[in-house]
Amino acid sequence: MSTKPIILTGDRPTGPLHLGHYVGSLRNRVHYQHEYKQYIMLADAQALTDNMDDIDKVHRNVIEVALDYLAVGIDPKLSTIFIQSQVPELTELAFYYLNLVTVARLERNPTVKEEIRLRNFERDIPAGFLTYPVSQAADITAFKATLVPVGEDQIPMIEQTNEIVRRFNRLYKHPVTKQEILVETKALVPEIGRLPGIDGKAKMSKSLGNVINLGASADEVSKAVKKVYTDPLHLKIEDPGHVEGNIAFTYLDAFDTDKAAVAEFKAHYTRGGLADSVVKKRLEAVLQELLTPIRTRRAELAEDKGYILQLLREGTEQAREVAARTMDEVKAALGLNYF
Amino acid sequence: MSTKPIILTGDRPTGPLHLGHYVGSLRNRVHYQHEYKQYIMLADAQALTDNMDDIDKVHRNVIEVALDYLAVGIDPKLSTIFIQSQVPELTELAFYYLNLVTVARLERNPTVKEEIRLRNFERDIPAGFLTYPVSQAADITAFKATLVPVGEDQIPMIEQTNEIVRRFNRLYKHPVTKQEILVETKALVPEIGRLPGIDGKAKMSKSLGNVINLGASADEVSKAVKKVYTDPLHLKIEDPGHVEGNIAFTYLDAFDTDKAAVAEFKAHYTRGGLADSVVKKRLEAVLQELLTPIRTRRAELAEDKGYILQLLREGTEQAREVAARTMDEVKAALGLNYF
Repeated sequence: MSTKPIILTGDRPTGPLHLGHYVGSLRNRVHYQHEYKQYIMLADAQALTDNMDDIDKVHRNVIEVALDYLAVGIDPKLSTIFIQSQVPELTELAFYYLNLVTVARLERNPTVKEEIRLRNFERDIPAGFLTYPVSQAADITAFKATLVPVGEDQIPMIEQTNEIVRRFNRLYKHPVTKQEILVETKALVPEIGRLPGIDGKAKMSKSLGNVINLGASADEVSKAVKKVYTDPLHLKIEDPGHVEGNIAFTYLDAFDTDKAAVAEFKAHYTRGGLADSVVKKRLEAVLQELLTPIRTRRAELAEDKGYILQLLREGTEQAREVAARTMDEVKAALGLNYF
Repeated sequence: MSTKPIILTGDRPTGPLHLGHYVGSLRNRVHYQHEYKQYIMLADAQALTDNMDDIDKVHRNVIEVALDYLAVGIDPKLSTIFIQSQVPELTELAFYYLNLVTVARLERNPTVKEEIRLRNFERDIPAGFLTYPVSQAADITAFKATLVPVGEDQIPMIEQTNEIVRRFNRLYKHPVTKQEILVETKALVPEIGRLPGIDGKAKMSKSLGNVINLGASADEVSKAVKKVYTDPLHLKIEDPGHVEGNIAFTYLDAFDTDKAAVAEFKAHYTRGGLADSVVKKRLEAVLQELLTPIRTRRAELAEDKGYILQLLREGTEQAREVAARTMDEVKAALGLNYF
């Protein structure tokens, strides 16, 4: 067994991934896979908790998201990519953890509260939605992950997981070795915060039309860049412009590797004399350079869905073996071993 | 496949079974197994929902309850006896059903409300306890059981199951056959109501010391019968006595097969002149006759725990095959099939 630290990460497959995912997680995963043992979960079961009325979307996007992973350089030889619903041990583990968490505790979870508000569930909260932090605790602990890359807003989920881990370990030990079975985890919060949408809104979403998908065509990228929100007060080229809140610069900061050139652009724009169109031209060049190989590779991979499924099958088998081992230990600790 | 109607029944293995179980369910199961395909579940996973602090009790009593089953005449060739926790498909099914039930609906369940009150959970309700009707729905539907023997107080659980079934069937169909997958179920309420404790209390429990276990020794039976609550106003033999609420007669009604003799005893007792000691002597004879062969067979079976485990293993394998088939259909209907 590998002695590298273990990461669990993943996505809810409800749509193709976009630049926000690239900056917030995908780019990091390409690095992490060398330093860590990385499990990447296609969280289809979790996606169903609020998509029971659109299950086809979830099914379809499992393949789409897998294509995005491979296209950006996640290597299935280094990272274990798996489909959550095909590892039933995760639901089994969640089932037992439900006994270790009170309803009141789940109702107090700030992330869940916020998500409930966003979805306008009000009193009609599906039970599976209220309990999803327990399901996440199962996902994390099944792999004994010590690191989970999340945004600041997801930290309460990590706390909930560790509460379950501590409670379980206090109450139950391995029946033979008397060792603790579960492992506490840590949030790995990326330095770069969330990328805003091209319209400047904090939330990126397909329905808002403010995202650039990783598989976007050259033409789609070009059109999207034209719509990028800049400084609405920067009316004439010679006027001094604002860089702060100017999404063209936010995106250059995120994607342009020539930091000196970006700094110079910012200075020029601030003192006046640099046209939005010039900034956007640079941004488009940077994005096309980033996205062209991704798009090409994605299109090639999409030709052979059988190969993608084969990779997912292999990753899922590996993941299932690890989760089953943890589940066996948990069941032994709970006295649920008879045969 | 058998075309007999399917029953799911079972017990939470938290203690040895007693005469209350015999009258309320075990006796019926011995008959049912000829007319129906009967699955009998040792609900260890469900027992944990409020016994996470005493898991050894649950583990130990799986074998004890299995011994009770076999001793009363449940035939593992006719009935499929299985251990809930060893059929992980049940937790998996419950996980998806959680998305089809709201938290508010669970909180309104009268059976759960009453159980919460009895356990003094107040605000500290384990999430696994609130959601156990969903887990029961999974148990019932995994076997496509059309009949579930329950007391009147459990009818809300059957209603909850059918709500899930109807919602699931309305939303999802088998992707190939386009047929409905889940089957509605019916409560099978036994004609004879709940047997009271020997002290006359409605609730029988080991902690109240008002039960007679199926494995009780002859001496224990004898002592218990002496404690049976009769008519506190029947002070002198020649006084008229009351039969109503007189547990000696309640038990004779339940266990004495000579109904004419019991009727005559009741008449005699009511007009006066029949001593409590005579009634109890008859009751003891009836109970010893019932329990002696059960006790003997139980003791014999207890000699060979390996054999019991082997039976449970076989039953569990059979049950798992059926549950896995249902789970496959459910997953296909939910689009959670990829490979």
